[in-house]
Amino acid sequence: MAGFNNIPVYEELVEMIQRLPNIGRRSAERIAYHIIETDDRNVDRLVDAIRKAHNNIHKCEICGNYTDKKICSICSDPSRDKSTICVVTRPRDIVAFEKSRVLRCTYHVLHGLLSPAEGIDPDMIEIRSLIRRLRKGGVKEVIMATDPSVTGEATAMYISKLIKPMNIKVTRLGYGISIGSELQYTDEMTLSRALEYRNEI
Amino acid sequence: MAGFNNIPVYEELVEMIQRLPNIGRRSAERIAYHIIETDDRNVDRLVDAIRKAHNNIHKCEICGNYTDKKICSICSDPSRDKSTICVVTRPRDIVAFEKSRVLRCTYHVLHGLLSPAEGIDPDMIEIRSLIRRLRKGGVKEVIMATDPSVTGEATAMYISKLIKPMNIKVTRLGYGISIGSELQYTDEMTLSRALEYRNEI
Repeated sequence: MAGFNNIPVYEELVEMIQRLPNIGRRSAERIAYHIIETDDRNVDRLVDAIRKAHNNIHKCEICGNYTDKKICSICSDPSRDKSTICVVTRPRDIVAFEKSRVLRCTYHVLHGLLSPAEGIDPDMIEIRSLIRRLRKGGVKEVIMATDPSVTGEATAMYISKLIKPMNIKVTRLGYGISIGSELQYTDEMTLSRALEYRNEI
Repeated sequence: MAGFNNIPVYEELVEMIQRLPNIGRRSAERIAYHIIETDDRNVDRLVDAIRKAHNNIHKCEICGNYTDKKICSICSDPSRDKSTICVVTRPRDIVAFEKSRVLRCTYHVLHGLLSPAEGIDPDMIEIRSLIRRLRKGGVKEVIMATDPSVTGEATAMYISKLIKPMNIKVTRLGYGISIGSELQYTDEMTLSRALEYRNEI
């Protein structure tokens, strides 16, 4: 096809943008146009921001949360309860918990879930670093806060079996209906769990 | 809020990604995570692609279509009919026409539409370059293919008034129902135009 689309540097840009999560061909083209049309200063800022974030953000040496320091802001906060560790799948899950302001504990980020189907075994996620951390002592409770999915459950079970012999309490997030959700749209698994974990009022 | 979101290089990246078209906060965060997590080679390729597209793609000196040369592939194609110029709003419109394979003419890209409300006057879009081009002679017909919107119509009218004294035929794209559309979802303006421009069968 003649026209604009046969320019190699354009095609390469669209291809690279399409590799970003949830970006289809149309969105990628719209973004490519924006990049061609915006002024030099904006392109410099965008490129700088990409490079700086990629180069300076890494895993916290203690919990695996993202940070631009050696130790993240939560692990280095003296007011945090270090005797309770909440185990999550990804750094974004910490953001969700922090928003709820319920927990004042520390976290451990697995950076994935066990999945034999996808070839993800225990060595590929941050389980060993969690066990090392627990062996140092001082932890009384580990809250398993992996996703309520098949792989999330399996990962929580696998890890809790490793922890229990260490005489540390292991808990799992409560199951039930979501606040603000409509019962008619609640799936049957959630409803059956909500019945099983029902409370007297 | 504590956690991951208080890292300045992360916040800067999310802000820059949000400036891209049709990207909200959530999508921007997902893309930022991807950029942090992907390998160095992918970041290099993305940054390179952004810089190369921005630096090497510019307006064709004749028609204003995007190109990485002085003259775009359409204007430099000897088989093209240079006596007919199809006037479009943006380079992407050319791609649509080229896909339809109906036209073998050349184009002129306005890079915008007149809009007094947004302060866009004739000097801010590529009208003068069109008139200069027509003054050189050899053009028999100008097809106004701006969007069928208020600003698209106004721009087509404005330009056609400038061209008519030059003894060049000016035409406008036909109005009517879209092929493959459902009548029940067709807006009334389109339907009334389709009736007005009805053909005998």
